[in-house]
Amino acid sequence: MRVDDRLSDELRLFSITRHFTKYAPGSVLIQTGNTKVICTASIEESVPPHIKNTGEGWITAEYSLLPSSTPVRAPRESTRGKVGGRTHEIQRLIGRSLRSIMDLALLKERTIWIDCDVIQADGGTRTAAITGSYIALMDAVRWLKSKDMIRENPVINSVAAVSVGVVNDAVLLDLCYAEDAAAQVDMNVVMTGDGKFIELQGTGEEYAFDDGQLAEMLKMAKKGIWEIIEIQKKALETA
Amino acid sequence: MRVDDRLSDELRLFSITRHFTKYAPGSVLIQTGNTKVICTASIEESVPPHIKNTGEGWITAEYSLLPSSTPVRAPRESTRGKVGGRTHEIQRLIGRSLRSIMDLALLKERTIWIDCDVIQADGGTRTAAITGSYIALMDAVRWLKSKDMIRENPVINSVAAVSVGVVNDAVLLDLCYAEDAAAQVDMNVVMTGDGKFIELQGTGEEYAFDDGQLAEMLKMAKKGIWEIIEIQKKALETA
Amino acid sequence: MRVDDRLSDELRLFSITRHFTKYAPGSVLIQTGNTKVICTASIEESVPPHIKNTGEGWITAEYSLLPSSTPVRAPRESTRGKVGGRTHEIQRLIGRSLRSIMDLALLKERTIWIDCDVIQADGGTRTAAITGSYIALMDAVRWLKSKDMIRENPVINSVAAVSVGVVNDAVLLDLCYAEDAAAQVDMNVVMTGDGKFIELQGTGEEYAFDDGQLAEMLKMAKKGIWEIIEIQKKALETA
Amino acid sequence: MRVDDRLSDELRLFSITRHFTKYAPGSVLIQTGNTKVICTASIEESVPPHIKNTGEGWITAEYSLLPSSTPVRAPRESTRGKVGGRTHEIQRLIGRSLRSIMDLALLKERTIWIDCDVIQADGGTRTAAITGSYIALMDAVRWLKSKDMIRENPVINSVAAVSVGVVNDAVLLDLCYAEDAAAQVDMNVVMTGDGKFIELQGTGEEYAFDDGQLAEMLKMAKKGIWEIIEIQKKALETA
Amino acid sequence: MRVDDRLSDELRLFSITRHFTKYAPGSVLIQTGNTKVICTASIEESVPPHIKNTGEGWITAEYSLLPSSTPVRAPRESTRGKVGGRTHEIQRLIGRSLRSIMDLALLKERTIWIDCDVIQADGGTRTAAITGSYIALMDAVRWLKSKDMIRENPVINSVAAVSVGVVNDAVLLDLCYAEDAAAQVDMNVVMTGDGKFIELQGTGEEYAFDDGQLAEMLKMAKKGIWEIIEIQKKALETA
Amino acid sequence: MRVDDRLSDELRLFSITRHFTKYAPGSVLIQTGNTKVICTASIEESVPPHIKNTGEGWITAEYSLLPSSTPVRAPRESTRGKVGGRTHEIQRLIGRSLRSIMDLALLKERTIWIDCDVIQADGGTRTAAITGSYIALMDAVRWLKSKDMIRENPVINSVAAVSVGVVNDAVLLDLCYAEDAAAQVDMNVVMTGDGKFIELQGTGEEYAFDDGQLAEMLKMAKKGIWEIIEIQKKALETA
Repeated sequence: MRVDDRLSDELRLFSITRHFTKYAPGSVLIQTGNTKVICTASIEESVPPHIKNTGEGWITAEYSLLPSSTPVRAPRESTRGKVGGRTHEIQRLIGRSLRSIMDLALLKERTIWIDCDVIQADGGTRTAAITGSYIALMDAVRWLKSKDMIRENPVINSVAAVSVGVVNDAVLLDLCYAEDAAAQVDMNVVMTGDGKFIELQGTGEEYAFDDGQLAEMLKMAKKGIWEIIEIQKKALETA
Repeated sequence: MRVDDRLSDELRLFSITRHFTKYAPGSVLIQTGNTKVICTASIEESVPPHIKNTGEGWITAEYSLLPSSTPVRAPRESTRGKVGGRTHEIQRLIGRSLRSIMDLALLKERTIWIDCDVIQADGGTRTAAITGSYIALMDAVRWLKSKDMIRENPVINSVAAVSVGVVNDAVLLDLCYAEDAAAQVDMNVVMTGDGKFIELQGTGEEYAFDDGQLAEMLKMAKKGIWEIIEIQKKALETA
Repeated sequence: MRVDDRLSDELRLFSITRHFTKYAPGSVLIQTGNTKVICTASIEESVPPHIKNTGEGWITAEYSLLPSSTPVRAPRESTRGKVGGRTHEIQRLIGRSLRSIMDLALLKERTIWIDCDVIQADGGTRTAAITGSYIALMDAVRWLKSKDMIRENPVINSVAAVSVGVVNDAVLLDLCYAEDAAAQVDMNVVMTGDGKFIELQGTGEEYAFDDGQLAEMLKMAKKGIWEIIEIQKKALETA
Repeated sequence: MRVDDRLSDELRLFSITRHFTKYAPGSVLIQTGNTKVICTASIEESVPPHIKNTGEGWITAEYSLLPSSTPVRAPRESTRGKVGGRTHEIQRLIGRSLRSIMDLALLKERTIWIDCDVIQADGGTRTAAITGSYIALMDAVRWLKSKDMIRENPVINSVAAVSVGVVNDAVLLDLCYAEDAAAQVDMNVVMTGDGKFIELQGTGEEYAFDDGQLAEMLKMAKKGIWEIIEIQKKALETA
Repeated sequence: MRVDDRLSDELRLFSITRHFTKYAPGSVLIQTGNTKVICTASIEESVPPHIKNTGEGWITAEYSLLPSSTPVRAPRESTRGKVGGRTHEIQRLIGRSLRSIMDLALLKERTIWIDCDVIQADGGTRTAAITGSYIALMDAVRWLKSKDMIRENPVINSVAAVSVGVVNDAVLLDLCYAEDAAAQVDMNVVMTGDGKFIELQGTGEEYAFDDGQLAEMLKMAKKGIWEIIEIQKKALETA
Repeated sequence: MRVDDRLSDELRLFSITRHFTKYAPGSVLIQTGNTKVICTASIEESVPPHIKNTGEGWITAEYSLLPSSTPVRAPRESTRGKVGGRTHEIQRLIGRSLRSIMDLALLKERTIWIDCDVIQADGGTRTAAITGSYIALMDAVRWLKSKDMIRENPVINSVAAVSVGVVNDAVLLDLCYAEDAAAQVDMNVVMTGDGKFIELQGTGEEYAFDDGQLAEMLKMAKKGIWEIIEIQKKALETA
């Protein structure tokens, strides 16, 4: 049985709040259980040097934990003077996931900045960040269209993510922090709306997993993502 | 007339939400108009080297703007690799203001970390941060008492802050960003619950102000702080 | 009575030495008691990016303590790899104070760098830096005129600064370090030559001050600044 | 057909040279095609703070590209003053992979530093680094045993890694740089000697892959790892 | 007698391997005893700002110790976030030495990057780096000529370097680490192919040396450099 | 003829002012022509980790140019966030030179910090810094004796430094900046009071020098140092 009484293939309570803050064209609060992440999409009318004059746009992501988001306060990376390895890893993952569903030529020469700021962390922050950023991205793109800044929608697919893992030899969906800390395997799965893989990151924690466990985790991840995609769709129905 | 139709000595809509996030013993969302700041108080059972073995505690503050909190995205200080001058100035002000109402010996050898994270910025973030942090601090202290970790309340006074300024030669209370950007004088006033000054920072922006304007600003600041103190009291009434 | 036998409203021995070093167009040694600051004004024929092509000039200030300027050696900020919060705060104050008396359009697209290097520190370094930098600035402007690089004087007012404070419940002018360290209130006042405020920064050190104390401090600051302005005038009389 | 005429499931020429440098107890040159990595294992008789006094040891990895290892010179990270996101990601992967086959209690309170310095880069540097580091680790452990510093072998399994990917819709083993740059999917697989997964990282590059492609990639990765394990075994046969 | 049985004026076993790695136009492994340095020369078709539009080229050097190159692992400078004083000193020396034998106008507006990465360190790494870099530079220049990117050879002299020193009051040539650590005087001598001095750096280690010792060291250094120049010539004979 | 009408073997006007600032136990202003350096010696009652518990003391040096010390303002290293290569090189040289005349065991477990801050730079700052620091060191040692903190004088020799060089094929003593910038050879010589070499650093600037020039430079350096030692002695005569 799980720490919060869920079935092994049950998501935590999941909600998406659009227009959470006022200034960014896309701004979403995503919650899954006690994990809460503010995902915003801001637009800058220029691109990084390496794609200047290609006619293409860019999308980049930054991720940060508020110091008070965790039970033990996490030192601020700005104060430490550098961004840590875990943060780098996560923001590269978010950026890649979103770029993989974009036709960047349709965005034209501008950058969309995705900012994922975790205000409460109880496991699964990176997958929540990807799922929520997709909604923020959609709102930013709608804003661009409403201003006639783009003609065609550059978002050519949808994306959602979830974690699965092996805890005490059982395969579980959507791990909370206590489960994650005890996990033998931790796997993050990012998929498109039509059921294909964008990213698959499975890690044995001083443990190695076999083909059977892999198959079971992938099956459970698909189920979870299927449900999340439905919640995303509903969230996007209103203007 | 003001950009948002207020009287010159009128505060913006002001609210305080306690227990905004779950893990820090003090966690407050403070709003004044469109400015929204998360103020938390976290406890660490150690003190910085310079007061080790003095038997006293410490309280320190950090302040940060979420990149998407402003109409034009603000680069993340962790990414730039250093904390800017404005941020330094603000977090030193918050820290000093809170320390000035504490008996740090009663806190014993522990540190209270105040984190002020601005999620929406429309002027007055530093004064909102001070006002909100006082509530977060009180909740952290109540938590310490509930755990029998301290005997006496180390918070010996209350503190609140507000901005005043001169805009188009008129003295105004609680400036929003548009007013602040056009201000001839910008003044932040921090006061105790019994009407004394803790901090006074007035700055002419390519402008110099005279005694009359100073007197009018101080009077208006006192009126505003009086109202804010009432809101603080009400917020603290429930457990 | 004061640590150095002064009256409560008496300045320390105050002197200004122009042309202290040879290469900067403005170079001043300012002394107030045991505090000694080298203030220089250097000219760079370009401006920072944010005002490029506006036709306006810029003035920016940097401040530093020589490691051996204090009784206990202060670690060098270049060695620590970052500029501390106190330094940031002071150099922003100096820069703002000088910009507030300039018509930057008359300076044209160039930058004046103000460097304040404290070689001996006994309290009041930031106010001495402002007072001395004004003289260095004037010398740099005279140099620009002598070279026909500007037509009109962009310095449209004069500026001087002094500290006041409350020590053992007494209001004192021009605090030395020992007084400053024991102060209940520390206030820095920056004024124009015609008696208006540019900047007012009053801080209670675990203490709050009332209207009466504020009025007394402001009165005493004005007296001190009046005397300093006379000294500045005399210093500028020769070419 | 592949850029270097290989079959789709064919490894590049693969070799392992032990004792490549003289001072580290484990020092390996690993080559796969034109990719060459020096992997060393050094021993430090202390552990990082977070595991002090647990009686356990630690193993940590650092990875770096020599500036001249790539056709276009790569700026040195020491000169840039910070370690980039890609480097962080890779060294965390190497460290996790090696820790997952260790019983750190048997290592006792000491740290093994794994350094992977790429002297020639033609794709697959991170998987080569893992494969080679395992050999360097084994040599360091043998050295510890020869000095009677440990009693039991703390390495409880073997580890090897390989890349697979989808290029022009074809699944390929052990991608060289030209293939990697054109890949639709890039997947790194880390496995134990007994055929279980330690780490699985599959990334669609503006592309999403389906279950069939995943299955094919995993099958091919296993074949490659199987062959690499044989080469590792042979390399370790001599003393 | 010396730690490795050499005569006092005898070089260690010395070898130069060209084309050591594949991608840089110049790539050399230089060995002197147990000291091994990879010296490469890479070409960038631009120059640093300070010589832009002068029509001249530039040559710059970077130096680094692999962490495992020394008996006690040396922390990586990229991880420490800054380049140390010793490294700065050495890379400035290498750069100056090579620039002194170049006619930079003949190189045209491009930069040659010299990278010296020490893979095994047993004393004399900086002199080995200079001697080896000369060969890498020559290969890069030959490559430029073969591509018709330059017409005339910009390398107008040859350069080689060696260390001498005083150990136990005896003057010795080409100090290994054990000798260097015990040296009373450590001197690095850089000379041209026609027997003139480019650089002379002699340092007493808590010791002062007299004219006689200086003369003896210089004589021995010349003998060593003479032999090294012969080895360089032979290495460059093949294409 | 020289830019300032000196003979080729003539020092610039040279003066030493002791007790230049008030708080450091040793504080010297040294001038040679237009070069002015403040050299101070401060005492810290602890030593760096690498010599803790050896019973020995330590002496370390820092060097900095005030931004306004040069005709073109030099950016502050604290603002740039790192100490440059030239600065590293110079402060290592100063530190080594002073350590070479000390018996650090007699100093006991304390550190003497030498700070050399150049307030006016016209060539020869590093040699002036060494010469002046010796006087500051002597004053700090006298202070230690006067406080009975040491029994025997740990300074076992005196040290002075001067520059020589080749300009337009002529050998010159004590180069000013204009000469230094045009020099074919630049050599810094550090000697003890009894005429031995501590440090010799000769550099050809895109030029190589022969034995005859070396001999002439050394002879001239000795003459200059002899004169400087006399000035040092006189400066130290008073208490």
